[in-house]
Amino acid sequence: MPTCEDGFFEYLSSIDCSDVEVYAIPEGSVVFPKVPLMIIEGPVAVIQLLETPFLSLVNYASLVTTNAARHRLVAGKSKNLLEFGLRRAQGPDGGISASRYCYMGGFDATSNVAAGRLFGIPIRGTHSHAFVSSFMGLDDIIDRTLASSDGSNKCEDFVSLVENWLARIKDGSLHGTFGETNLSELAAFTSYALAFPNSFLALVDTYDVMRSGVPNFCAVALALNDMGYKAAGIRLDSGDLAYLSIETRKFFHAIEEEFGFVGFGKMNITASNDLNEETIDALNKQGHEVDAFGIGTYLVTCYAQAALGCVFKLVEINKQPRIKLSEDVTKVSIPCKKRCYRLYGKEGYPLVDIMTGEDEPAPKVGERLLCRHPFNESKRAYVVPQHVEELLKCYWPGNSAKSREELPSINEIRSRCMAYLDRMRPDHMRRLNPTPYKVSVSAKLYDFIHFLWLNEAPVGELQ
Amino acid sequence: MPTCEDGFFEYLSSIDCSDVEVYAIPEGSVVFPKVPLMIIEGPVAVIQLLETPFLSLVNYASLVTTNAARHRLVAGKSKNLLEFGLRRAQGPDGGISASRYCYMGGFDATSNVAAGRLFGIPIRGTHSHAFVSSFMGLDDIIDRTLASSDGSNKCEDFVSLVENWLARIKDGSLHGTFGETNLSELAAFTSYALAFPNSFLALVDTYDVMRSGVPNFCAVALALNDMGYKAAGIRLDSGDLAYLSIETRKFFHAIEEEFGFVGFGKMNITASNDLNEETIDALNKQGHEVDAFGIGTYLVTCYAQAALGCVFKLVEINKQPRIKLSEDVTKVSIPCKKRCYRLYGKEGYPLVDIMTGEDEPAPKVGERLLCRHPFNESKRAYVVPQHVEELLKCYWPGNSAKSREELPSINEIRSRCMAYLDRMRPDHMRRLNPTPYKVSVSAKLYDFIHFLWLNEAPVGELQ
Repeated sequence: MPTCEDGFFEYLSSIDCSDVEVYAIPEGSVVFPKVPLMIIEGPVAVIQLLETPFLSLVNYASLVTTNAARHRLVAGKSKNLLEFGLRRAQGPDGGISASRYCYMGGFDATSNVAAGRLFGIPIRGTHSHAFVSSFMGLDDIIDRTLASSDGSNKCEDFVSLVENWLARIKDGSLHGTFGETNLSELAAFTSYALAFPNSFLALVDTYDVMRSGVPNFCAVALALNDMGYKAAGIRLDSGDLAYLSIETRKFFHAIEEEFGFVGFGKMNITASNDLNEETIDALNKQGHEVDAFGIGTYLVTCYAQAALGCVFKLVEINKQPRIKLSEDVTKVSIPCKKRCYRLYGKEGYPLVDIMTGEDEPAPKVGERLLCRHPFNESKRAYVVPQHVEELLKCYWPGNSAKSREELPSINEIRSRCMAYLDRMRPDHMRRLNPTPYKVSVSAKLYDFIHFLWLNEAPVGELQ
Repeated sequence: MPTCEDGFFEYLSSIDCSDVEVYAIPEGSVVFPKVPLMIIEGPVAVIQLLETPFLSLVNYASLVTTNAARHRLVAGKSKNLLEFGLRRAQGPDGGISASRYCYMGGFDATSNVAAGRLFGIPIRGTHSHAFVSSFMGLDDIIDRTLASSDGSNKCEDFVSLVENWLARIKDGSLHGTFGETNLSELAAFTSYALAFPNSFLALVDTYDVMRSGVPNFCAVALALNDMGYKAAGIRLDSGDLAYLSIETRKFFHAIEEEFGFVGFGKMNITASNDLNEETIDALNKQGHEVDAFGIGTYLVTCYAQAALGCVFKLVEINKQPRIKLSEDVTKVSIPCKKRCYRLYGKEGYPLVDIMTGEDEPAPKVGERLLCRHPFNESKRAYVVPQHVEELLKCYWPGNSAKSREELPSINEIRSRCMAYLDRMRPDHMRRLNPTPYKVSVSAKLYDFIHFLWLNEAPVGELQ
């Protein structure tokens, strides 16, 4: 039984977005609940078809960017943040989105090579545990030669050079801190260094970090140094990351001192293994020596809050305002096509966002303005803005003569995101009991919302 | 600076999966931790390239299917389960995966039309709140005619027919339970019924469920009945779903009685609004009259556990077993290429899964077999299986002469999933304190694991 007429499909094939206008807050902006992220205008049937695509494109993107920014805030600006989430995202394409939006939110790089290629995101990663365990011993290495960094000489047996360094470490001041290291691990590290002498970053926890992985790494790094190469560092992927990073740092400093290797103590330590905001915060409190965090699962699945509840509301049709009521006041929509502004105070911080009716005059710098909570009568305040920013820009003018904002590059979006977060008043950003940022409506819009509410709601039914 | 040699890219362009063999537990099977979901054999460099794609394809798929199955278990077999998650998934493609795997896990339908088209999943949905609020009043309806279901007659003014029914309801025994309903809502329902007289399912909570939405729905449903059509039901999307569904059911029964409309009391009630396992369980305990649940956010984001931690481990290379040690015993890998079996008991329930070395004889029906916990020496039990099922099948034989299992259809996978869940012993499936299902290794494999462990681990470092 057909569920609709052929004419409907003909209609669908005839429509396009030439009569649609799309306004949006620029990507990378800091935004708050109730302020529309986008305003879509046009024929209602066309707009209705856009509801799910827009929500599907905006919800996860905003959520994971926010999650990335939260991880950046807790890790601090000096740390390298690497997104390692591809295998835990919602399939390959969920992973591509994750890599893209984590970068926008302030991550430095991704292990997702496809995302790097598509969007120009820097790529970082290490070898896998399976790479280490695929080696049986040093005999697995066939080609043992390594040319020096400047091409001036060639080491015919780099494996022996590594073995010599391992013996020197073992016999020196670090004597007794480790015994026989795992030689299949040493083979894997040596093989990796032979292939990538400029980017030797070793995963050191396949067998035992302090008794095998770190000494093996140091032997290879010292041998690379003989040939003019600088090792990139280590990655810890299990165990007590605070303790292991501190012990590893001590080991590196001991190598620096013992062999007069200036800078070895500052060797990069990357940590991974189910990291999230809480574990990084705990590491910070405890003290650690980690330079870079590789974050996957908790980042891309937004484990702490796995969904963002953006919705799509009809607020005006044929110049008539529309309102969606609900027994839950947070679900009541704010009617009418609106203009939205961010008002900044003397110290340069954003003070409040305000929504006005479309035809109201824009807030003016230096002029006192009443900002009202949209639903709570008693919450209101006068604000004298020092700077006024209109939030929504036109990104799709359709056939109208309006000018279209250029779409920024991913790096511009990332810079905007970090700059906007920097500009927030610190008490809005603190982890514990942050001050809520206020979102308000103009006095005129307030009165209109409450007039409509009274007229649409059946008497005696609202809370 | 180039990070690798041209020869590497030449190598990449030369490889394919003809030397790879892939074994997997059939999709839709019930599986347990430690038993490999897939076994991949082939040249190590090629296999290594498959790690992330396979994990990305398996992790979320398995997680969301499991989550769907959990929702089915708590909702019961008699309820219709509708997946409504597209707008909260990880972008459009995350949403497509979600729809597909939720169906496999036991959902009945999706609101994702693209997934319906791609995979043949039944499509269900209702109109939106925006559709209701896009109407101003009954004057918005231009074409008021409706042909009867059998084509024998035509109603010239279906709107008046609806208005008459609304007046009859208001004046009858339900007098006083509601006053003036919202006429823009009535217009939306009437318009929807005119377009889809065979599938009129109304979202009744835009203004007020009991004082507007339900009476308006009943008026339209009664008018449709006059024309030979059967309304499909209502959807509740906010408020106290237990209370509202019970009150709505009473209203429907009152209509049945008042107007002698046999079956009206059984009209379908769909509920949605941030539903999950917990809320459905609470509704069950409280009592409700919901026939179908529409579940989105919590389902597709797997909010209760947003990631599945499947990993990829090298277990054998060049006939040599490999083991990955860890201070966390749950992260120690089980070495060697293995065969995996499920052993069933007399009552038809699965008793235990057992992994053996590749060359060990398969467990035999009626023969006593020692099953050992892979790591805990004291946990062991003899089992006499009544039925033995080998778990992994060959789905990609590469160039080998092995036969390839056919890929089942989505409906076959769904049926397998539901049948396998049905076959589980109830104490493994209960919500509170379920009995853990046991996963074991053969005595021979146990000894081998522990031999390797002792030989690979640096002395004195394991917990």
